Amino acid sequence: MDIDAFRRQAHGMVDWMAEYLETVERYPVRAQVVPGEIAARLPTAPPAGPEPMERIFADFQADILPGITHWQHPSFFAFFPANASPPSVLAEMLTATLGANCMLWQTSPAGTELETRMMEWLGRMIGLPDGFYGVIQDTASSASLCALLTARERATGWRANEAGLGALGAEGVRLAAYVSEEAHSSIEKDAMIAGYGREGLRKIAAGDDFAMRVDALEQAVAADLAAGITPACVVATLGTTGVGGMDPLRPIAELCRRHGIFLHVDAAWAGSALILPEHRGMIDGVELADSFVFNPHKWLFTNFDCSAHFVRDPEALTRTLSVTPLYLQSRETGQVIDYRDWGVPLGRRFRALKLWFVIRAYGVEKLKTMIADHIAWAGELSEQIAAAPDFELMAPLSLGLVNFRYHPAGRDDESALDALNQRLLEQLNDSGRLYLTQNRVKGRYAIRFSIGQTATTRAHVQRAWGVIREAAAASG
Amino acid sequence: MDIDAFRRQAHGMVDWMAEYLETVERYPVRAQVVPGEIAARLPTAPPAGPEPMERIFADFQADILPGITHWQHPSFFAFFPANASPPSVLAEMLTATLGANCMLWQTSPAGTELETRMMEWLGRMIGLPDGFYGVIQDTASSASLCALLTARERATGWRANEAGLGALGAEGVRLAAYVSEEAHSSIEKDAMIAGYGREGLRKIAAGDDFAMRVDALEQAVAADLAAGITPACVVATLGTTGVGGMDPLRPIAELCRRHGIFLHVDAAWAGSALILPEHRGMIDGVELADSFVFNPHKWLFTNFDCSAHFVRDPEALTRTLSVTPLYLQSRETGQVIDYRDWGVPLGRRFRALKLWFVIRAYGVEKLKTMIADHIAWAGELSEQIAAAPDFELMAPLSLGLVNFRYHPAGRDDESALDALNQRLLEQLNDSGRLYLTQNRVKGRYAIRFSIGQTATTRAHVQRAWGVIREAAAASG
Repeated sequence: MDIDAFRRQAHGMVDWMAEYLETVERYPVRAQVVPGEIAARLPTAPPAGPEPMERIFADFQADILPGITHWQHPSFFAFFPANASPPSVLAEMLTATLGANCMLWQTSPAGTELETRMMEWLGRMIGLPDGFYGVIQDTASSASLCALLTARERATGWRANEAGLGALGAEGVRLAAYVSEEAHSSIEKDAMIAGYGREGLRKIAAGDDFAMRVDALEQAVAADLAAGITPACVVATLGTTGVGGMDPLRPIAELCRRHGIFLHVDAAWAGSALILPEHRGMIDGVELADSFVFNPHKWLFTNFDCSAHFVRDPEALTRTLSVTPLYLQSRETGQVIDYRDWGVPLGRRFRALKLWFVIRAYGVEKLKTMIADHIAWAGELSEQIAAAPDFELMAPLSLGLVNFRYHPAGRDDESALDALNQRLLEQLNDSGRLYLTQNRVKGRYAIRFSIGQTATTRAHVQRAWGVIREAAAASG
Repeated sequence: MDIDAFRRQAHGMVDWMAEYLETVERYPVRAQVVPGEIAARLPTAPPAGPEPMERIFADFQADILPGITHWQHPSFFAFFPANASPPSVLAEMLTATLGANCMLWQTSPAGTELETRMMEWLGRMIGLPDGFYGVIQDTASSASLCALLTARERATGWRANEAGLGALGAEGVRLAAYVSEEAHSSIEKDAMIAGYGREGLRKIAAGDDFAMRVDALEQAVAADLAAGITPACVVATLGTTGVGGMDPLRPIAELCRRHGIFLHVDAAWAGSALILPEHRGMIDGVELADSFVFNPHKWLFTNFDCSAHFVRDPEALTRTLSVTPLYLQSRETGQVIDYRDWGVPLGRRFRALKLWFVIRAYGVEKLKTMIADHIAWAGELSEQIAAAPDFELMAPLSLGLVNFRYHPAGRDDESALDALNQRLLEQLNDSGRLYLTQNRVKGRYAIRFSIGQTATTRAHVQRAWGVIREAAAASG
């Protein structure tokens, strides 16, 4: 493909992209295809000769688009948001064109220095105290893995990477990590990867407020110490996936300090709300934490992937992750940041650019307004659900996240209610008019409504609530 | 930013992108800035109010571009290539606009089914035998980590994730992994992360051909077995980073089969050359391997990140990596592929689209020609170096990779030659006219010339050779 053809095709795609963003509401939110339906349209063998881009693009529209679940749809209320935005898409266009690998400072000085600066901006924006240093990871899963690894190293006197955990185990070294039972499954996965094992991960009971119970944490730590097991890492969650629970950071942090335990804070979703000073109560005590992660790719209008990972001691992180053969050295090694030493993969996309575009194009005040709106609309919805005779909230509102169920008067059999709500959710998602996620709250099936997409307005939330009530009433 | 503004800005960027790709040769290959120079241009605080995109884009050109090392420059001969292409950039534009998260089939059925099909295409294209199942990872580092983790599970009777490596170590379980001393540093990093430890990773001696010595591997395995250590994983490299050495796959695979050792093949760079049947000798025996990785983002004209990871037993991989809370279940769970269970991070970009665009836009025959050209130009360069009186090859040509040094007649002090070549390399890279990487080959400093960028032609390689000769002659 020559450059003239590229220019022509790219202009055509821009028109399509703009139209898509303008008309995304016309699509069903969740793809309405069955397994295998898209695959059946795709040839089993690659073409020997070139195909014209016109045909490829036409096939994209005809064969791929029907199988897309539209995450940027304003009625996407499932999971957590992954809200992109026009400035972010523009930056991704440039990033793809430059095709730079930001593994070393030298392989992209601007990529590295913009990343450092953007992480400083984000830190200020969310009210993180001085003394944290940032890096962009792909996901919070990866950031939390880095935390568990750093903790592992610190707790073993920097011997785990060298000796291996099996050899340390033979010496009697045993490590434990601690997390709320409400925490995200990625922590369990990370603990498996990092060699703690599921049995080395203590799932600490949460209270009625869905927050980790500090007394239970204290007991678990004491029990491990008594058993000769080293408490290596606590992961505190701000905004649990199910209901948005907030672990009490300061007492947890104080406990970690007392025992010399590495404290990682997973605020993957809720962290974006920290740009609103009125929500900063949740990070009271964060100055005592060792690391902190939140995802601008969730709720800060920045394309996936962009996870903001802050650490107090970068040297501990790089000591854990750095391996430097000659071909990865540069004459600047040691005098600059080589972000490859701050995460698992070697290669790194130029992800700072989209943050720069988003933050500047909106400005901090507008970003605040957009997130405050999401939270306000969730508040309104939550009140409406609480007031509706046949619905009930299953957990207190948390930022943009509402858990509820349909509970018609007089129908109190819990299993029947579970089944009723499961049918209702499937029916709603099958309608294509909105997309929600199932949950269990204290053992009972709940419908989870998460507000945060870029194009979502109050009207979309209210329309969704209308659709839910109608479908519920019709479900009998 | 409203959609009309987005459309206008995006059209403007497309014109810039086309011009950039057309004129990228005018830039110095390696950024000519000093540490801190770009950061000094960036405000330390984010703006409160919105800034016009015109200004942001102007700043991108004025303040960011001078700090970019131009990976898509035709005279980029450093590291390994990361060759993007116009069709790939077009696909990235659409991917960014859709903003879909391909973690589950349901969250993007087309993303999942296209990924499966593209991995089938790639498998056919590189001559991989039937019986491998593919997934796109971000990097080969991550794919190899998955391999070491799966091997860890298999070697411990699927107990490591559950019990943790420390507990198993206390029972006397010890694991070892094996890799050539010439292998990429990511394997060492992965072995640290996965808990084998540096001491659990045996770096097997390579022969004069830079390939792992099978007799040395056999001895290491026997020594471990004798010591009660379980050989868990061998990582064979096809195309080592330094000189492109090829581990002898069939005898290694047969050894692994005999001992029940998991065999992972790291062909991150060289794998793309397998689309040429004449280079398939290197995968003789791959039908006995457990997993295989190569990076279309290196040498198959597909934007980073796109690493093609094939496994023989997907159930072993997902058993190793799957953790499924209710909020990540869907009614299709178990009947479809949820690729989140095939890798470390939960969230996943829609990376299959760019492969579809690239393979169709070029067609397999054209892709073969492009890679065959790179290899031919490297061959020509290699012959010229061998014939030049004051230069010498430091390793045999391997595909597009040439290692050489300047060695003027009569100057045979090895340390002096190291220093001379180091100065020469710095001088060449400082010129901005080309970009090369340093290496050490059997202890001696070498200059590493890697051919594979999309816009590179024979003329660029020849011009670079001229620049090198001139600079060497001038260096005295």
